Amino acid sequence: MKKPNLTIVKIGGKLIENEERLTSFLRDFAAVEGLKILIHGGGNMATEVAAKLGFPTQMIDGRRVTDANSLKVIVMTYGGFINKSIVAKLQALGSNAIGLCGADGRSIISKKRPVKEIDFGFVGDIEEVNSTFIGSLLEQGIVPVFSAISATREGQLLNTNGDSVAAEVAKAMCNTYATELYYCFEKKGVLANLQDEESVLPEIDPEKYRQLLANGLINDGMLPKLQNCFEALDHGVNKICLGDANILKTGNPCTKIVK
Amino acid sequence: MKKPNLTIVKIGGKLIENEERLTSFLRDFAAVEGLKILIHGGGNMATEVAAKLGFPTQMIDGRRVTDANSLKVIVMTYGGFINKSIVAKLQALGSNAIGLCGADGRSIISKKRPVKEIDFGFVGDIEEVNSTFIGSLLEQGIVPVFSAISATREGQLLNTNGDSVAAEVAKAMCNTYATELYYCFEKKGVLANLQDEESVLPEIDPEKYRQLLANGLINDGMLPKLQNCFEALDHGVNKICLGDANILKTGNPCTKIVK
Repeated sequence: MKKPNLTIVKIGGKLIENEERLTSFLRDFAAVEGLKILIHGGGNMATEVAAKLGFPTQMIDGRRVTDANSLKVIVMTYGGFINKSIVAKLQALGSNAIGLCGADGRSIISKKRPVKEIDFGFVGDIEEVNSTFIGSLLEQGIVPVFSAISATREGQLLNTNGDSVAAEVAKAMCNTYATELYYCFEKKGVLANLQDEESVLPEIDPEKYRQLLANGLINDGMLPKLQNCFEALDHGVNKICLGDANILKTGNPCTKIVK
Repeated sequence: MKKPNLTIVKIGGKLIENEERLTSFLRDFAAVEGLKILIHGGGNMATEVAAKLGFPTQMIDGRRVTDANSLKVIVMTYGGFINKSIVAKLQALGSNAIGLCGADGRSIISKKRPVKEIDFGFVGDIEEVNSTFIGSLLEQGIVPVFSAISATREGQLLNTNGDSVAAEVAKAMCNTYATELYYCFEKKGVLANLQDEESVLPEIDPEKYRQLLANGLINDGMLPKLQNCFEALDHGVNKICLGDANILKTGNPCTKIVK
């Protein structure tokens, strides 16, 4: 039996901060036919709100720590304002969206990241995606919109990497659906030359990935994204593309990740 | 055919602000058997966060106006932090909750309140409750948790009176379910004497309501609550009770509204 198509899109923080680009992207997303899921990051809103509320951003070894106050602000901004604003915009565009975090319907269960050298605080590593619940929403014609917040089985909300949420949701859903995963960020794709925004690599396979790694051509932000991609492909995700806010427009350049 | 039972509970802001009372209430709520829906207000969190963010609370004739900044903070706090915290707590108590606002699944559609003497800003009057969508969640064993935020058909989020949300949801659901509605606030019920916290009226029928009104014994906060109650009874809601955080405990005093 042919699996129904499912399109999963992750949009990054910088896109969300630009009202015009976000609206244009959401118009493209609303026009995608078939089942779909949106996952969003949050950009700088949490940092700005935290600063105004007098919560200093805690950093250890240059890495951000999610303390109780940061988590509160992340839930307010990513899980609240940004999530519901996107849902309202999609509804206006005719997409029957609902906004969720991982606690809702136990949809994304995680474990608090164990403390090794650094205690990252309220940060979650995903353990399980509730594909039955998410599938039941899709079958009702609903478009789930996830903020990158998961929860433990004990009900602790946890800040979670948005790229990982997208990859884990795709991996969980691809058993039932022919799943395509799109990562939308500020570049047109993975660049062969970081100084040249147009040097988009059209395709990366594992061999090419090893070459890029060996030549130090993959920057720190891209590394986990690509690792997520290859893992998702191995789990049966059909197609993965990385590109900018226009990624859903036909004929737009992007980087395709292939096995 | 006997309708399945549905329990709808509205909890007010002051209850939410008290961590201990909220936890105790949520334990009682999680223990309620059968289908259920929770609707929550927000208390002072929005005002406090708005003040810290430098958004002054706009008042006209002693009434609060929801300007664009207030709405942003309401969506962050009520729709985000408070909603998701309640969901996570209910999940930990074994209730499969999901947190929603009116934009999610077009569940609560409203109209921006028309400007007469006062422009209340982004405030919504409910037009339609999507009982099909809410019913489909209930049938899946899901417990919807609504913040008091609705949305227009055009996707504008609107601040909405929580008591009205509860009444409208009850009115929409009572066609399909034998519906009981509980209003949980800081008093043990409607008081015969405002100076005596123990003077709880066990029952109010329309005749008693007219008497109380005529004698000026119903304060401004209680008036719309009771109007909502009688309207909901007229629409077929089976039972309505007003009481404090212990309202769901057996044998606790409360005021029952009857036809």
